Amino acid sequence: MSGRLRILWPGKTRDLDWRALQEFYLRRIRQLAPCEVVETREARGLEDSQSARIKEIEAASLEKRLKDDYIICLSDGGKTMTSEAFAGFLQKRLSEARGTAFVGGGFAGLAGRILERADLTLSLSPMTFSHELCRVALLEQIYRALTIMKGKRYAK
Amino acid sequence: MSGRLRILWPGKTRDLDWRALQEFYLRRIRQLAPCEVVETREARGLEDSQSARIKEIEAASLEKRLKDDYIICLSDGGKTMTSEAFAGFLQKRLSEARGTAFVGGGFAGLAGRILERADLTLSLSPMTFSHELCRVALLEQIYRALTIMKGKRYAK
Repeated sequence: MSGRLRILWPGKTRDLDWRALQEFYLRRIRQLAPCEVVETREARGLEDSQSARIKEIEAASLEKRLKDDYIICLSDGGKTMTSEAFAGFLQKRLSEARGTAFVGGGFAGLAGRILERADLTLSLSPMTFSHELCRVALLEQIYRALTIMKGKRYAK
Repeated sequence: MSGRLRILWPGKTRDLDWRALQEFYLRRIRQLAPCEVVETREARGLEDSQSARIKEIEAASLEKRLKDDYIICLSDGGKTMTSEAFAGFLQKRLSEARGTAFVGGGFAGLAGRILERADLTLSLSPMTFSHELCRVALLEQIYRALTIMKGKRYAK
């Protein structure tokens, strides 16, 4: 594997149980591949109803950290894959020199202009998951993909 | 809503972070609808490789607790739905006198004979999720469905 792997999302997850699970999967991922998590600026102090404004503020901060990477935005309307297909996709991505960046939204989701920059929009489920659930599910799937690539055993 | 709502799976989730998240969503669900979780016998002390034996032991215990309910088994190969479609489905189910039981697997998944008893096999994602992730994602989706039914606001 040569290409670097990054994960970007706005703000630190505040809930301690979700955070602990993020850290659990991230430790496991890092036993198999280098992986950087970038927590960009989170819009705070705005009403939940101002979701366009929230997404705008968060998009500006995400954009500053997006480089020349292959960008995969998470969205429930995106492309679905089995874990095996995702492992094949990630293996191919990581074999290329260009980096790979997964981008997840905050509470309000991702701004349209971030989604438009995506090389791929990936859906972890046709169901709408909370952003905390998405983050942990993404890390679990990246870990699962790395174990599939490396022929390691891992749970159902 | 008249039909009762039950969730069955083998064994208590041991990881404390996953357990805390289960309890968090279960408390929220119970503010909106009665919901019983039944933790059936979990096969212990067997090698992970003996998955057929594990599923067999766990199926016997699940079967004892399955009543005349409408049975929804979780499986990554099952039917996928959006959260809105799932809310519509659950609303219809809960409006009927017959109870509704969601059945999730343990580490090794569900035995074929449990899957065959299902009135519906539901997939939370075409990806394979760990059973801990499945349990929390199911509870999050049931909570989301109840908020959609009741016209409450809830997060992305």
